[in-house]
Amino acid sequence: MTPSRPARISAVRVTPIALKDPPLLNASGVHQPYALRAIIEIETDDGALGIGETYGESDTLLRLQASAQALRGLSPFDLHAVDLAVRTHAFSAEEQKKIATVPGSKAARVFMKTFGAFESTLADLCARREGVPLAVWLGGQVRDRVPYSAYLFYKFAEHIDRPYEADRWGAALDPAGIVAQARQMVADFGFGSIKLKAGVFAPDAEADALLALRQAFPSHPLRIDPNGNWSLPTALHVAQRLGRELEYYEDPVLTLADLAALREQTGLELATNMVVCDHAEFRENVRMNAVQTVLLDHHAWGGLRATRELASMCHTFGIGLSMHSNSHAGISLMAMTHLAASLPHLSYACDTHYPWQCEDLIQGGPVRIVDGSVAVPPGPGLGVDLDRDALGALHEQYRRCGIRERDDEAEMRKYDPAHVKRKPRY
Amino acid sequence: MTPSRPARISAVRVTPIALKDPPLLNASGVHQPYALRAIIEIETDDGALGIGETYGESDTLLRLQASAQALRGLSPFDLHAVDLAVRTHAFSAEEQKKIATVPGSKAARVFMKTFGAFESTLADLCARREGVPLAVWLGGQVRDRVPYSAYLFYKFAEHIDRPYEADRWGAALDPAGIVAQARQMVADFGFGSIKLKAGVFAPDAEADALLALRQAFPSHPLRIDPNGNWSLPTALHVAQRLGRELEYYEDPVLTLADLAALREQTGLELATNMVVCDHAEFRENVRMNAVQTVLLDHHAWGGLRATRELASMCHTFGIGLSMHSNSHAGISLMAMTHLAASLPHLSYACDTHYPWQCEDLIQGGPVRIVDGSVAVPPGPGLGVDLDRDALGALHEQYRRCGIRERDDEAEMRKYDPAHVKRKPRY
Ligand SMILES: [Mg+2]
Ligand SMILES: [Mg+2]
Repeated sequence: MTPSRPARISAVRVTPIALKDPPLLNASGVHQPYALRAIIEIETDDGALGIGETYGESDTLLRLQASAQALRGLSPFDLHAVDLAVRTHAFSAEEQKKIATVPGSKAARVFMKTFGAFESTLADLCARREGVPLAVWLGGQVRDRVPYSAYLFYKFAEHIDRPYEADRWGAALDPAGIVAQARQMVADFGFGSIKLKAGVFAPDAEADALLALRQAFPSHPLRIDPNGNWSLPTALHVAQRLGRELEYYEDPVLTLADLAALREQTGLELATNMVVCDHAEFRENVRMNAVQTVLLDHHAWGGLRATRELASMCHTFGIGLSMHSNSHAGISLMAMTHLAASLPHLSYACDTHYPWQCEDLIQGGPVRIVDGSVAVPPGPGLGVDLDRDALGALHEQYRRCGIRERDDEAEMRKYDPAHVKRKPRY
Repeated sequence: MTPSRPARISAVRVTPIALKDPPLLNASGVHQPYALRAIIEIETDDGALGIGETYGESDTLLRLQASAQALRGLSPFDLHAVDLAVRTHAFSAEEQKKIATVPGSKAARVFMKTFGAFESTLADLCARREGVPLAVWLGGQVRDRVPYSAYLFYKFAEHIDRPYEADRWGAALDPAGIVAQARQMVADFGFGSIKLKAGVFAPDAEADALLALRQAFPSHPLRIDPNGNWSLPTALHVAQRLGRELEYYEDPVLTLADLAALREQTGLELATNMVVCDHAEFRENVRMNAVQTVLLDHHAWGGLRATRELASMCHTFGIGLSMHSNSHAGISLMAMTHLAASLPHLSYACDTHYPWQCEDLIQGGPVRIVDGSVAVPPGPGLGVDLDRDALGALHEQYRRCGIRERDDEAEMRKYDPAHVKRKPRY
């Protein structure tokens, strides 16, 4: 059964969307009223369609759009050709040089995002063409359900300029608010582990919130993630208060050197999605033993297959595996779920912002999180399909909302004109 | 274009073959008159066929045959299911435990060989189903031709028990013989780099041979590989004589510790296919900086995709990439060629024993090596097909030859009854 002609990419569509997003607080500031995403669709000339989701900020979006035309005619398997097309059509000569030689450069990071968006869409397309779940196509499905953690945020009750009705979660600005949020989230979704996004208020107040969570949830694994917003002495102080309660301690400080010092002095399991973001940083982390767990993110790491390679490297070096999330819709959630379902050595429940999103664009309504986990659907590819009416409406929302960049810092200045992002703040 | 039903494996055939093999000398002894290989064929229920080649010694062969039936009904993409089928059908409970926990154990090594044989056959099958070259299917073809090195061996003129006519190469037992062999090989195949298999005679005699090669081939990169048969002082002594002439110094000593010491004292580029053979050894090598180049071998490393992961890890850690070879037929050569063609960071010409084999089983005659390289064929999958008559004849040769294990040491005792394998010998 050799086809008369190998499949070729015949169409690539990139559609920016805006999703309502609650006023969640973090180390930089506060989420804007809309989170930006891009939806990718790729068709092949044999009638197959793959879908993907990635970042929707203007820089990524422009690169995706600049690449789209250049992918036509390529084999959906030929990632090398896709790579070349993206480099040469969406990046300047100077940027191409940086992509090739400076892994941590902005160009290299944006390249990994751009390429990764096409790679994951093509993986979905190829799996759909074969009629197998994406997890199987990636190498085999090792679990039927993927566990996620409750992702708690300090938050305001509603956005300051009230662009739409307040969300159902209410405010959470102190330990009691965080515990109430956790109770609701665990009740609604059955999460078996809990993560607190920190780096917002005074570290002792955030440590108090985590200890309150421990009181309320005696047996739930707990994580805290201040996004590198603490100095080493602050991180050491919080470690003394929380050490024994933490499943892992995520990005308490902002550099590999500080993380290595913290590890050396506390012996705690440290995790990151901020300082092991490319191969050069991976290598340096092995040398320094800075973090012991890496949060995977196929959106940032060049796609699903590159992230599987990263996972394999982590396994080789005894590094634990968790998964990172940004605000996202259901297509990203399903890609994360299939990827996680294909990883034998996943060590922890994955992160997801999904409970915070009240809008989605997949047929049959939002993805269900039951018992804290997402079932891997048995259908081809991602196992979910685009709802084109919803896609149109969310694109229209993108057009109307006027937001083109994520800027949590500027958003926070609407609440506090003196606010400046500063790391470490504490 | 979603198929009505996903493809399933419908048949798996494992056919042992014996290839005439010249009396090549090495650290263990001398090659037997026949090299054993196993040819794998896998069919799916949509009529596709994939082919593969691997080791043919009885242990591997029995495991391959024991697994074959268990693969029926599986998706050709589901490597996790293939892995489980191989583990549970071809290995005892005790071996399964070792596979899971002791990477360097015999069970783990044989598992990687057994699984890898099916994985590479399935990769060919999947690429053929799509009508694309295997290199493209693996992620993209980054080169049209794959360079190989001339693989020189000390050798006898013919096998002691004369099972068939002497080969065309004659004896090579001293520097002049090695240079003559190199001249013939470079003239016939156009090789642009040269490797000398050493560890046979006194190290100074072998160093003399390499220096004679340098005289005869002033600009060819040269490598020497005594298969760990030298002590550290011997390896240091040879390094003093040859250091500036070597492209890399392959397995001069037998342990990571000795290699690390040699590196420390000489600064030479060290390479291995003997001491970085699993993920645990890879990790240890990074820690110790023992070797700076790894010779890939998909037959030993769990297949094509696992070897691509290894290559990516090597790139991450700044480790050079070359490729290892055993005696093999054209199916292995084409799999090696496609794999190498898909690796952006291949650093060196690959090894191949292929010029030593005078028998093959692919349609249209042996693979051509021109200008020292093999062209990647544009056809689907490996781009070569099985010649079933030749397969039958080589299987018959296997049946008749009586050899079931590779034993270079016992073979050498036919020439020298006092011969004992001893490492390091010098
Ligand atoms: Mg984080
Ligand atoms: Mg070797």
